[in-house]
Amino acid sequence: MKTKDTTNTLLKLRKVMASAIYTNHPLKAIIVPSSDAHQSEYLAECDLRRSFISGFTGSAGTAVITQKEAALWTDGRYFQQAEQELDTNWILMKMGLKDTPSIEDWLCSVLPEGSYVGVNPFLYSSSSWNKMKIALEKQGHRLLETTEDLVDQVWDNQPVAPATSLVTVQENVAGKTVREKLNDLRQRMIKNGVNWLVLTALDEVAWLYNMRASDIEYNPVFFAYSVVGFNSTHLFIHQNRITDEIKNHLTNDVTVHDYDSIIPFLEQNCSSEKTWLSTNSSHAIVSAIYQIYRVTTMYSPVSMTKCVKNPTEINGMTVANNRDAVALCRYFHWMDMEVPKGNVTECSAAAKSLEFRQQEDGFVSLSFATISSSGPTGSIIHYCPNKDDDKPVKADQLYLCDSGAQYRNGTTDTTRTMHFGTPSQHEKDCFTRVLKGHIALASVVFPEGAKGFWLDTLARMHLWKAGLDYRHGTGHGVGSFLNVHEGPVGCYIGNSSRVVPFAAEVDLKPGMVITDEPGYYEDGKFGIRIENALLCKKAETQHNFDGKEFYTFESLALIPIQQKMIDRSLLTEDEVNEHTIQ
Amino acid sequence: MKTKDTTNTLLKLRKVMASAIYTNHPLKAIIVPSSDAHQSEYLAECDLRRSFISGFTGSAGTAVITQKEAALWTDGRYFQQAEQELDTNWILMKMGLKDTPSIEDWLCSVLPEGSYVGVNPFLYSSSSWNKMKIALEKQGHRLLETTEDLVDQVWDNQPVAPATSLVTVQENVAGKTVREKLNDLRQRMIKNGVNWLVLTALDEVAWLYNMRASDIEYNPVFFAYSVVGFNSTHLFIHQNRITDEIKNHLTNDVTVHDYDSIIPFLEQNCSSEKTWLSTNSSHAIVSAIYQIYRVTTMYSPVSMTKCVKNPTEINGMTVANNRDAVALCRYFHWMDMEVPKGNVTECSAAAKSLEFRQQEDGFVSLSFATISSSGPTGSIIHYCPNKDDDKPVKADQLYLCDSGAQYRNGTTDTTRTMHFGTPSQHEKDCFTRVLKGHIALASVVFPEGAKGFWLDTLARMHLWKAGLDYRHGTGHGVGSFLNVHEGPVGCYIGNSSRVVPFAAEVDLKPGMVITDEPGYYEDGKFGIRIENALLCKKAETQHNFDGKEFYTFESLALIPIQQKMIDRSLLTEDEVNEHTIQ
Repeated sequence: MKTKDTTNTLLKLRKVMASAIYTNHPLKAIIVPSSDAHQSEYLAECDLRRSFISGFTGSAGTAVITQKEAALWTDGRYFQQAEQELDTNWILMKMGLKDTPSIEDWLCSVLPEGSYVGVNPFLYSSSSWNKMKIALEKQGHRLLETTEDLVDQVWDNQPVAPATSLVTVQENVAGKTVREKLNDLRQRMIKNGVNWLVLTALDEVAWLYNMRASDIEYNPVFFAYSVVGFNSTHLFIHQNRITDEIKNHLTNDVTVHDYDSIIPFLEQNCSSEKTWLSTNSSHAIVSAIYQIYRVTTMYSPVSMTKCVKNPTEINGMTVANNRDAVALCRYFHWMDMEVPKGNVTECSAAAKSLEFRQQEDGFVSLSFATISSSGPTGSIIHYCPNKDDDKPVKADQLYLCDSGAQYRNGTTDTTRTMHFGTPSQHEKDCFTRVLKGHIALASVVFPEGAKGFWLDTLARMHLWKAGLDYRHGTGHGVGSFLNVHEGPVGCYIGNSSRVVPFAAEVDLKPGMVITDEPGYYEDGKFGIRIENALLCKKAETQHNFDGKEFYTFESLALIPIQQKMIDRSLLTEDEVNEHTIQ
Repeated sequence: MKTKDTTNTLLKLRKVMASAIYTNHPLKAIIVPSSDAHQSEYLAECDLRRSFISGFTGSAGTAVITQKEAALWTDGRYFQQAEQELDTNWILMKMGLKDTPSIEDWLCSVLPEGSYVGVNPFLYSSSSWNKMKIALEKQGHRLLETTEDLVDQVWDNQPVAPATSLVTVQENVAGKTVREKLNDLRQRMIKNGVNWLVLTALDEVAWLYNMRASDIEYNPVFFAYSVVGFNSTHLFIHQNRITDEIKNHLTNDVTVHDYDSIIPFLEQNCSSEKTWLSTNSSHAIVSAIYQIYRVTTMYSPVSMTKCVKNPTEINGMTVANNRDAVALCRYFHWMDMEVPKGNVTECSAAAKSLEFRQQEDGFVSLSFATISSSGPTGSIIHYCPNKDDDKPVKADQLYLCDSGAQYRNGTTDTTRTMHFGTPSQHEKDCFTRVLKGHIALASVVFPEGAKGFWLDTLARMHLWKAGLDYRHGTGHGVGSFLNVHEGPVGCYIGNSSRVVPFAAEVDLKPGMVITDEPGYYEDGKFGIRIENALLCKKAETQHNFDGKEFYTFESLALIPIQQKMIDRSLLTEDEVNEHTIQ
């Protein structure tokens, strides 16, 4: 990780800010979030504006540049990396620490009276925009939309927006035709009393049109918007991407518009009619509709439908997980043979697991960068092995591998922790407690109406008994040949439960797929995580209190838990039986 | 339960409403909630205005009277009772049913344009007032404060407000002197940047002044307000209640004012200074302070301090529970002998349990009406035996007894379910699942920062496994010789978790006392509940992840669980050991 000299770029940026070319007023500050116009979690190269301007390359962070100062906010995972990458132009704002001001508080403390602050309105969600606007206006400042992104103006050699090949997903994989999905959506629109529905999240557009691409690494999506009316369906995408095959697939039902025409289209057709928007959509999109005509929900109806997999998708997720299990079983067997010889590194191990996966039918790509960590690096929760600082996988250390893949019919995400020598009693004790939590969640039966976060305590209680815990959520939704992190369902009861998208107050329903991934991490020593994707399904219970249905989970991942890591004396008979650990 | 003829009373009330004597405008409607000026859960006779005007005597409900109609809202527990007690003047609004309108929606649907709606501003909390005001104003109506309670104007022979003898609680029971409590509070006031603190909840005033009385049945409180400044402390109470002993106890530190002078006092002294109020205080109190000077929190600092018992109070709660255990053990032994003879009724059983309690040192009163129910009546969660319709306790039915008492040093609340003949396998199965949930909560270890609702799933999971559940919370706080239902701590993850005061997002802390009371109810057949009060305390864990403390519970109630109800094959070794069920 290198420090980036940002002096010249900041100089240029401040000139642009002062020039008032892209706003009506000279700007005293701009905010550069880690985001794209679709509020994606993973970004394409061309959208790494915050990385470019600050030098800090971590996945989460916000840069704020005033005429005199520059500051970067990031969280605990990235303090060390940010300290290395930021040059002396930058103040590092360590989020979560008591004395760190919020962006709005800091801005109000440094800005001269009556300042104008600019943001690219496509990069800020409607809800974030409103929050910032209110905070700034309270102190007499104004938040302005810039007509172009200011960072783009000073970014020489900015990569071009990706436009990878579009492929279609057939009905025997998607389970529903585009026409059926549109019909379902229109029923929901009627119920909600709206004339139009606007979709901005890339995975929602990909799902609706049964199309995939690879515009963003690990995410089989393409840059596009969609607007659905009662008599018309509109897809906004760079037109030169529409091949004859795609044209046939879309039929005459769908009108294709250029990607950049979304705002004028909304203004001309939807702005004065009841229009359904997600508050997670960009401020630019939401503000194209007159306020009184906006019908906003946190989650779009596609997001709520997509997270419940249909029988064909469930079958696909099962097949994908079976194929992935074959690859991972071969991989861990290989590790078992090779690690003791002393020639395996974190990077070579990750490469080997990819090799085994590539041999499986329907493999498309990984679903995220493989976490392959030996000993101390396992305690870094979002660790990724680095070629420039590759580390050996040692036989006397715990090895944690969190990996997943995109197959043509499903997405996988699995973590196993293994020891290729002799684990210590302490490691076994911790591992077994993590396993007990994993089993408790995997085997719970719960009534309809239960939310994911209701079940989080089950995954933690055995660790708590020993005074242990982990600093991350227990589960997130998984897409079906889509994003490996898919909202809105999840399992996290912690303080942030109302904030993070994967822990929301959404009822668990049969067909949902969530991960079950408790862990335990000892800083500088080791990390343990056991993760399976679970399918929610109807439970056959003896009774049905209140006429309610009861649900449970089925594990999709079929990769063994390493026997030598288990302290059998800590398991109950039920735990052994329910997981057939023999 | 008898139907009450309300025709004449409603006629008189509507005349008062139209007269505009107590408002500036004739009222088209008034709202009569089940409340007193202190937002108490239990009410004194003189405050049963909603019962008087409607005839419906259940504990929860709101009456709304327009010039033409009268409607009463209540919840599922009381539908049957309300149908019997309300005469034909009344529409019963069944809360929780899909087609039942909210009060505000119904009002807006029946009122003529631009109507004035009246409420006694002392009987509506500030938060309820604001909600109703906004809803009515949206539809062009206005919510008005009445200068006197309108129901009082038509209530002949309304009981007088109680003024029972005040007694003091000595330091060897309270654990802290009034002066120490005031010092603590003033520290909190400094932190919160306020000049004044207003206390309106009766148990908060009783706690602060180390005084008790019995103005409300089961609740050892007295009607009073308190205002705390930095250099003065003000108690508002009917002055003739202040005996020489109380005068000595209060010393010169406390200025006693008449109960009715609270509003003028606030207006003259506090209205233009930063004043701390709870949003649960009445609209009348909150609106006495100019809006910009109000500092509101849902819970007052007394409420947050009071729920953490000090070592002396913990000792008192332990002693009270021990004495109560002696009484209950004698009682259940007596039941074991007498029920099979066939001469025990629900009422005579309740009377017998009181008799045993009265023989214990320090007994003051019951802490709520004893629930003594045999067979089918056990499935009515808030059942109370009725002398006019007394039922035998049968040896071939489950018997549920939920009872508690006020002792001079603590408050108890315990439920046991027993069978005095031979329980069926199904009854044993259900009982054992309830017991497993009870043990899971009682024996959990959890990190500091955990909220009560995080633990609710533990009490339900074994019932869920069989498709069973219960429709109430798992736990509520318990006062120390104070109210048996004491907020803000509790344990309930259900839909209403953000609404009910005993399930709030408050961290569990050592010294808190909450109940652990899972149950299972089969309509028309039987009810099962197992309840102990639990003391939260520090756990000695092997590790302390993140430097955090871990906590657990200790059962205060020492009354055996009936062995014959337990299906031992459903218990794990740990469950048997942790509860020493042998």
